[in-house]
Parts: sequence; C-alpha cells; structure tokens
Amino acid sequence: MSLFLTLFQDAAASEVSKAVEQINGDMGMLWMLLSGILVFFMQAGFTLVESGMTRSKNAVNIAMKNLLDICVGSLSFWLVGYSLMYGDTSNGWFFWSGLFQGEGADLFFQTMFAATAATIVSGAIAGRTKYTTYIIFSIVMTAIIYPISGGWQWQGSGWLTNLGFIDFAGSSIVHSVGGWAALVAAFMVGPRIGKYVDGKVLPIPGHNQVLATLGVFILWLGWFGFNGGSQLAWGGADAIGASNVVLITNLAAAAGGLGALVTTWIWYGKPNLAQTLNGALAGLVSITAGCGNMTAVGAVVAGLIGGIIVVFSIEFIEKKLKIDDAIGAASVHGVVGVWGTLVIGLWGVDGDTAIGLFNGGGASQLGAQAIGALAYAAWSVGLSFIVLGILKATMGLRVSKEVEIEGLDISEHGSIAYPGKRQRDFEEE
Amino acid sequence: MSLFLTLFQDAAASEVSKAVEQINGDMGMLWMLLSGILVFFMQAGFTLVESGMTRSKNAVNIAMKNLLDICVGSLSFWLVGYSLMYGDTSNGWFFWSGLFQGEGADLFFQTMFAATAATIVSGAIAGRTKYTTYIIFSIVMTAIIYPISGGWQWQGSGWLTNLGFIDFAGSSIVHSVGGWAALVAAFMVGPRIGKYVDGKVLPIPGHNQVLATLGVFILWLGWFGFNGGSQLAWGGADAIGASNVVLITNLAAAAGGLGALVTTWIWYGKPNLAQTLNGALAGLVSITAGCGNMTAVGAVVAGLIGGIIVVFSIEFIEKKLKIDDAIGAASVHGVVGVWGTLVIGLWGVDGDTAIGLFNGGGASQLGAQAIGALAYAAWSVGLSFIVLGILKATMGLRVSKEVEIEGLDISEHGSIAYPGKRQRDFEEE
Amino acid sequence: MSLFLTLFQDAAASEVSKAVEQINGDMGMLWMLLSGILVFFMQAGFTLVESGMTRSKNAVNIAMKNLLDICVGSLSFWLVGYSLMYGDTSNGWFFWSGLFQGEGADLFFQTMFAATAATIVSGAIAGRTKYTTYIIFSIVMTAIIYPISGGWQWQGSGWLTNLGFIDFAGSSIVHSVGGWAALVAAFMVGPRIGKYVDGKVLPIPGHNQVLATLGVFILWLGWFGFNGGSQLAWGGADAIGASNVVLITNLAAAAGGLGALVTTWIWYGKPNLAQTLNGALAGLVSITAGCGNMTAVGAVVAGLIGGIIVVFSIEFIEKKLKIDDAIGAASVHGVVGVWGTLVIGLWGVDGDTAIGLFNGGGASQLGAQAIGALAYAAWSVGLSFIVLGILKATMGLRVSKEVEIEGLDISEHGSIAYPGKRQRDFEEE
Repeated sequence: MSLFLTLFQDAAASEVSKAVEQINGDMGMLWMLLSGILVFFMQAGFTLVESGMTRSKNAVNIAMKNLLDICVGSLSFWLVGYSLMYGDTSNGWFFWSGLFQGEGADLFFQTMFAATAATIVSGAIAGRTKYTTYIIFSIVMTAIIYPISGGWQWQGSGWLTNLGFIDFAGSSIVHSVGGWAALVAAFMVGPRIGKYVDGKVLPIPGHNQVLATLGVFILWLGWFGFNGGSQLAWGGADAIGASNVVLITNLAAAAGGLGALVTTWIWYGKPNLAQTLNGALAGLVSITAGCGNMTAVGAVVAGLIGGIIVVFSIEFIEKKLKIDDAIGAASVHGVVGVWGTLVIGLWGVDGDTAIGLFNGGGASQLGAQAIGALAYAAWSVGLSFIVLGILKATMGLRVSKEVEIEGLDISEHGSIAYPGKRQRDFEEE
Repeated sequence: MSLFLTLFQDAAASEVSKAVEQINGDMGMLWMLLSGILVFFMQAGFTLVESGMTRSKNAVNIAMKNLLDICVGSLSFWLVGYSLMYGDTSNGWFFWSGLFQGEGADLFFQTMFAATAATIVSGAIAGRTKYTTYIIFSIVMTAIIYPISGGWQWQGSGWLTNLGFIDFAGSSIVHSVGGWAALVAAFMVGPRIGKYVDGKVLPIPGHNQVLATLGVFILWLGWFGFNGGSQLAWGGADAIGASNVVLITNLAAAAGGLGALVTTWIWYGKPNLAQTLNGALAGLVSITAGCGNMTAVGAVVAGLIGGIIVVFSIEFIEKKLKIDDAIGAASVHGVVGVWGTLVIGLWGVDGDTAIGLFNGGGASQLGAQAIGALAYAAWSVGLSFIVLGILKATMGLRVSKEVEIEGLDISEHGSIAYPGKRQRDFEEE
Repeated sequence: MSLFLTLFQDAAASEVSKAVEQINGDMGMLWMLLSGILVFFMQAGFTLVESGMTRSKNAVNIAMKNLLDICVGSLSFWLVGYSLMYGDTSNGWFFWSGLFQGEGADLFFQTMFAATAATIVSGAIAGRTKYTTYIIFSIVMTAIIYPISGGWQWQGSGWLTNLGFIDFAGSSIVHSVGGWAALVAAFMVGPRIGKYVDGKVLPIPGHNQVLATLGVFILWLGWFGFNGGSQLAWGGADAIGASNVVLITNLAAAAGGLGALVTTWIWYGKPNLAQTLNGALAGLVSITAGCGNMTAVGAVVAGLIGGIIVVFSIEFIEKKLKIDDAIGAASVHGVVGVWGTLVIGLWGVDGDTAIGLFNGGGASQLGAQAIGALAYAAWSVGLSFIVLGILKATMGLRVSKEVEIEGLDISEHGSIAYPGKRQRDFEEE
C-alpha cells in the first residue's frame, strides 16, 4: 500500500511538474514581453532627453534620428543582428545562424536593446551631424557593432562568458558600447559652432528642461524592464530574482540622482537639474551590469558613486578633452557603464557568496570585469573610428556652417519643431 | 498494476488540467488587463499628436475633447455599448443583453477600444468645431456607431464572422470606422479659415512637433496592448501567439515609419517628420487586422506599403478632395484601415495555411475582407452623415468666424494652453 | 478500489494545490511589481501637473522637488519607513522591526506609495518655498509621517484595522495625509506675491496646460497600478478582484472628470480644462479607499460627486480660507480623500453584503470611516504644523521677495526651464 502510494505520488508529481514548467515558461514570456514593451518606451525617453537638452532649432532632427533608430533597428536586428548575436555557429567571437532568426517575445526584447545602443549616439552629436551619416551609422550599430560584441557574453558560449565576465543587463554590452561610440562620434564630427570660442568653453543650454525631466522619468520607468526583463524568466526563484532586480535598480537610480544633486550643490553652489537628471541615469547605468549580483546596500553605493562620477566626467570631457558631447552621453553611458561593470568585481555577490575585492571575494572577478569592459571599449571605439572615418572620407559627417547656424531642422527636414514661435526667437536663442 | 497506474495517472492528469485551465484563465486576465491599461494610455498619445499637429490657440479644446472621449466613452460603453456589441440576443446585425453588461478585465479592455474609435475623429475637425457638437457625436460614436458594427464580427455570431471576415484587432472595426467618421466630419464641418485661399492650398503647421513625436511613441506603445491584448488569452499557444502579435506589430510600425520617411525624401526632397510619424501610425494600422494572420515578412511589407499609402492619401484628401482633415486622421485610420483589412486577403496566413491571393490561398478571403471593409465604411459614413446632418440642421457644427480666428480655447473654454506666452505670439502665429 | 482512487486523488490534489499556491504567489508578485512600476510613473505625472499648472519661472524647481521625492523617498522608506509601517513589534500605534526591512516586489510597491504621499505637498507650495525646507519635509514625510500612520491600517494589527476601518488603496492613508500636509504647508508658507492684492483674489495661471493634461493622463494610468496593485495578489478570486478594481477605478475617474466638466460649465459658463483635470483626479481619489468595496454604479456616483466637490473645495480654500494652494492639491487629495473614505460608509459593499448607511448596511461602517478619516487628518495636520513650525523658526520656509519675483529656478538652481525663451517673456509673464 505504502509502495503504491509512493508510486502514484511520483506519477502525480511528474504530471504537476510538467504543467508547472509550461506555466513558468508562459509567465516568463509574459514578463519578457512586458519588459520589452517598457524598453521600447525608452526611445521616447531618449528623444525627450536629447531634445530637451539641446536647442529647439534641432528638435525635429533629433526626433527623426530617434524614430530612425527604432525603425531601422527593428528591421536590421531582425534581419541579421539577432543571428550575429545569438547564432549557434560560433568560434566564441562571431556567431551566425542565417538570416531572420529569433522570434516572439525573445526577439522583441532583444531588438529593443539594439535600438537603445544606437540611440545613445544620437544625442552626443546633436546639432551638426548630417542625417545621412547618422542613418548609416545607426544601421551599422544595430546590425553589426552591437550584436557581434553582445554575443561574446549573452550568446552563452562566447569568450567573455567563458572568462566568467558578468554583465546582467548590459552596462558594458549596451551602454558602454553606445557611450564609447558616442564619444568617438562627437570627437570625429567636431564641436558645435559656439562651443569653444577664443579658448573659452561656452554653455549651449537646452531648450526645454521640463521635457528632459519627463524623458528621464520615462527612461527610469523603461529601465525596470531593461534590467528586470534580463532575468529572462519568471516563476519561483526567477520571480524573486527579477523583483529584486527591479527593487535595487530603483535604489541605485535614487542614489545616483541624489549623488549628483549633492555634488553639484557643493561644486556649483546650487543643486543643478540637468546634472541631477544625468545622475539618476548614471545610477541606472551603474546597476545595469550588477543588478543580479549586488545587495541592496551595494546597489545604493554603486549608484551613488555613479552619480558623482558622471558630474566630473562630463566636466572632464567637455573642458579637458574639449570634446563636445551635447548631452553627456559618453559620460552617462560610457564612463559610468565601465563603473557599473567594474563594481561587480569590487563588492558583487553571487547568491550568498562574495565575489568582489572589497567584500573578501578576491580579485579574479574584478579582473574578468576589467577585461570585459576594456574589450567592449576597444571594439566600440575601433569600429566607430573605422566606420565614421570611411563616412568622413566619402560623404562627410557634418552639415555646412550655414545649415548649423540656421538649425538642422529647416535644411535637413524642411520643417521646424515649433512653427508658432516667431523666427526672432530662433535668432535670439 | 499497469491498469491501476493508468487509472491514477488519468486522475492526476485531470486534477492538473483543471488547475492549468484556471491558471491560464488568470494569466489571460492579467494580460488583458495590462493590455487595456496600455490602450488607455493611447488617449494621451492622441491628445499629444492632435495638439502638437495643430495650433496652440486650440490646444485646450483638443485636451477637452480627448478627456471627454475617455470620460463619456467609459460611461456610455458600460451603460449600453458593451451590450450592443456583445449581447446574446442577436439577428447577426444587432445585439443586446440589457443595460450595464460586461465586467472586469474584459469590459475594461473593450471600453478602451470604444474610446479610441471616438478619439480618431477629434483631430480631423480641430480648430473650428463646436464643443457641444463634439460631445454629442462622441456619445453617439461610443454608444451606438462603434458597438453595433463591432458586434458584426467580434460578438462571434455576427454576419461578418459567419462570412469568414478576419479583423483581429480592428483595422476596420475600430480604425476605419473612426477614420471614415473623421472624413465625413471634416467634410461636413468644412475647412479651417486660411486653408484654401484663392484656389491655393495653404499649410497650417502644428505648434509642437516634439509633443507630436512623443504622442506617436505613446500610441506605438499602447498599440502593443491594442493588438497583443486582442489575443484575449495567455498561456500555451496563446502566449506564443500574443508575443508574436506584439513582435510583428513592432516590425510593421518600423516599416511604416521607414516607408513614409523614404517616400517624403523622394517626393518632397527631404525626410519629413510629420509624415514619418503618420507613417509609423499607418504601419500600425496596416497590421491591426492581420496581426494574427501574417508572417513577419508579410507584416513588414504590409506596414511598408501602409507608410507609403498614407503620404499620398493625405495629399489626395487635402489637395484633390479639398477636405481639411487637420491631422490626416482619415488617411491614417480610414484609408490605411482598409489596406490593413485587405492585405490579409493578399498574403495572409492561417497558421501554416496560405489564405491570400498572392500566396496561393485563392481569392475567397480577399472577397470576405473587401465586403467587411466596405460594410464598415458604409456604416460609418452613413451614420456619421445622418448624425452630423441632424446636428448641423439644429445646433450647428461650427463656431463663428471670430471665435475660430481667436482660437477655440478662449471662447469655448475660457483659458489658453500657454498663458505665459504673450498675446502677440498668438497674433503672429 | 474506490477507496484507493479517493486516496490517490487526494494525493494528486495535494500536489496540485501546492503547485497552484506557488504559481499564484508568482503571479501575485508579477502583478505587484508591474503595479509598482505604474505607480512609479505617477511621479512623472505629478511633475507635469505641478509644472504645467504653475509658472515657467519655477519649473526647474518643481522638477527638482519631484526628483527629490523619489530619490529621498526610495532611500528613506527602505531605511526606516517600511519598518515603521509594517514592523512586527507593535502596540497598535507604532511599529518597528529594525532598519532595512522589506524586500522585492513588496518593498518596491510600498516605496512608490510613500513617494506619492510626499509629492502631493510639492505642488501646493510651489513658487515661494525654499528648496532646503522642502528637502527636510520630504524626508520627514516618507520616513516618519506617512509610514507611522499607514501602519495603523495596513500593517494588519493596527488600531484602525481592529476598528474595522477600510481604506483599500489609500484615500486617507496616502492621499489625505498628503493633502492635509499640503494645506498646512501652503498656509504656513503663505500665499505667493500677487495672489491676494488689495482684497482681491487674482488668478496665477499655469504655463502649459498641455503638459498638465499629459500629467493627468499619466496619473490616471498609474492609478490602475495604485488601486489594482493594492489587491496585493493575483490568481482566482484575486484576479477577478483586481480586474474589477481597475475597471471601477476607471469608471470613477471618468465620472469625476465629467462631474467637474459639467459643474464648471454651469458655474463658470464654460467647461474648464484645469478643473476637469482636477475632477478626473478627484474621481480617482474618491474610489481609492473603496475600490474593493464598491459596485460599479456606486463607484460612478462616488467619482461624480468627488468631481463636483473638488471644484467648490478649490474655490473655498482659495477664496474663503485665502490659502494659496497653487494647484489645488489640498482639495484633490485632502478633501476628496476624506470623501473617498466616507463614501464606503454610505453605499459600500463587502462582497454581496451592504455595509453603507444608504444601502441598508447601518451606520457602524460610516462611524469607523469617520474616525479613520479624522485620525489621518489630525495626525497629518499636527505633525506638519510641528515640523514646519520648527523649520520656520530655524531656517525659514520661504525665499526672499526678490527671488520669488525672479523665479526660484535661477536663484535656487542656477538655470531656467526654457533657456531659449527671451528674458522678456519672463518679465511680461
């Protein structure tokens, strides 16, 4: 009798566990799909941040660039990007499975990441870059640069995976790849007219800080999907894991915003909005790699430091390197992307095990993180130089001086963002 | 022993399958509720698109119309609309189950569709229509026009369902019904002062293209719920189905945006923002009927063509028909709604079976699609003429010339959208 | 044989019910997490409403206050707030479990409520309050005032729970606590220069009603998570319950918007946008306490009356009490918060049982609701007076007259929201 019971309990348990597996899969799909929808919305956030932080005479151009990123990115990542990133045939560095790979919630979610990487570049080179140049660079970014290096880690058998490198949601894979490309692009295109005059560094304030603030709130919102969805599953430990990712993502963002707010208060004498916004984004980038490998306290400290770093990084790139990154994208995504990657090696955890240098986990994880961060930087900087170098030599990167002064909207797109404003506004701006 | 095992396995399987059914139902409810929440947000998107693409002196009026749509639509669809659309008593053309039908996630989701159909009309007749007129038309739309014809297909035993007509998420049922009503309304109300002067067609540019862009991103976001939620379920094949719907919805939108961008580049000489925005919306409308019956490639081609159609349709209605549709709503939702309905008959699939004329599925599906598209057009045009005709004969559709020139905001609502702007701005705009 | 079958069916059923419990827990976590994400987005909504309804020269300050609320609130509620609200050690009035309590989706969701309570104050005192004052008050609000009194009901063994008080999602616990604090703060800080001149009450119109409208749509959207997520679970009866909460939340909002629209039409002669927006928010606040204890019809009537109350309450506070609440926050959240609390005692239900005075449920629930509403009012008013009194006596609440006239943005934050606008605009505004 007792033997019978055991037998039949096993039979029942096996039926149940098959059903649970199916349901967990369905819940995971729901979570990834919803996360992808949230990440999609980040495109709107980028548009508002970039547009709000730059001048109104280029706002149409910025909208057109961000629309292009999602349009072109959706198609090119579907055509070749997914296969280059997640393909089965691989030597650890390059991946391929044929055209039109990926499907459903997974392809949708990954597509939004590719579009994000491309969009990061858009703001840095605002106000003087040819639209045609941007189109080609956006295609190359979503079809080649981002997917190939992304595969190194996220395909699952790439060389960085094998090295033990950790980048849960893409501090390096998405943000620093985008950020370094933005830095190279801003350098290659050159500064905006009026930025560096007679040895002085002049501010070129944006035209709408309320929209920039809304944009940051939208990005923060979307980031819950960006990081949380990177759990790639829901149910049991995954449900708890993904919830915790969202929680500490929020804590890091809060700490980053506060870090920048206090830093600017001390440094500039007043708490500054634009930098506080960048600080919140920096907090988010700081936890993007480590959101599955960080305690809540660790996340707060990581975000706080990220929010401080970003203020000085923006100043350094603008005033010392004299590279005109119009919205600080290289600092927010590139420099802080490296910070977010490295911090796992400083006080990261793997479950209950310490893996960081400062919490007693030794230096090996930090080594892996440093190699990864360096590899993504080298790849992105190298490829961007090559692609933009070819574009510079052939079609040119930059609009004429007259077009730049008039604003790109009229000559590149034939319309202005605020037709009700008198022309005088533009002249006096 | 083996017989016992089979018996008890069956017993276990039956327990499990009851539980799975319950859980799938719960997951489906979650997905529909979240989708309804996304569709709700489309009201904000419509507000921004309509407001951004028209003049600032009418922005308060547009906000008031969109607020009204969701307020009145929520109440009237709950009071009678749901019953007229999904009622049990039916002759295949009219449905009824009594007042206050529908509940929970289902009623919530369906309500948002009714409000969307009404809102489409709002933008087309911006800048010269009486608020009282709009209120009555919005009530009629959400309480009568939309639900009755919606029942033909979505109630499940209507004449179009029996005909084999397919409209998964409403290219015809929602968008073309709204779009044709918008066309009739724009025609009946007449063009804005200054649109057609001395035989010339003059542009009346909107006042804020950045907000219009944000609006389109919000609509695109909400559309994932609009189309994806129309799966009406989650779990197993439904989870895969809904995920695929969201994926190809995004691909079609991307292709539509790109189609319009390239078309305007060729046609106008520059890539145009307003048309690219309309193109993305057209891509979405193009796939709304067929998002459950289209391959990814089919969706991209459908969206691309939708994005091209919309550019020429807007030009045609504006310049040849000389109907002043202030934001191109009749083209985006009406004309492209028909396209999205027909394309299923051209290269649609039903699972692995071809059902389109061009992919070897014969002409019968195309016939059903054409009949459905025609029926919704005839119904919406006919009812709109009758309702607006009565309103014109009784209370009048249009504000006075003085009110129109001053802007509707002051005389209809007693306040302006941007009180900080000097009055001079309005005069010079 | 039949005995065996029963035995083994029980065994199977037990396996199944364990699995179902786990899955329901996972689905509940998903719903709470998504709801928390929606509530987070309300911060963006508050920013836009507050900013749009006040002058552009203070828009940076408002953005900085709202950013601060989420940054400081996330950290302080995690540090002490959660423990003060949900701690195990309790006398029914105060709760504690140690620092850094709470985790995952639950802490995330509750954090967003704390941040909401703080943010309500921000708009009321716009345009003249020191940023440092606001920082301290925001910390006290999220770390002490909100969590302690929240525990009275939501901890589960507090004195209001034991009294039978009902406040499902926080009409009193969140909104009226925030609203009364806003009223006290507006009174203590005093009116803006130019509000009350020579015995006359002058309007100080906001600078962007389109953004205010977008803000209300975002708040409405987020409220689906605010109320729906307060079910705290999903699956079976909870799935139906939460869906119904979302449905009637929308109905109440619609009725509230319509109530205010019609009221202003009758009262002012024209349907007014700002008040319609406040009406929709009032509809939402009206149903926040009772969304689990109200029929759909009851919700509509509650929301409708809420939308009427708010119009007169704003007039009363502005013109009779002569307290300058810049955006009507005390009325929307405080006065209507009390209404939403009381209405459960008027026509609330508990499942199929009537619990209200007017639907035959007797007066005892109304008594409990009145005591609760009074307790939250007394607590919030009392604590706010003490904290702001101390701040007034020490560091001062208010900026100098010169700073106020120039706008807080320049002197408090060193930048303006719209740097492209000429200085002249500000002078003439």
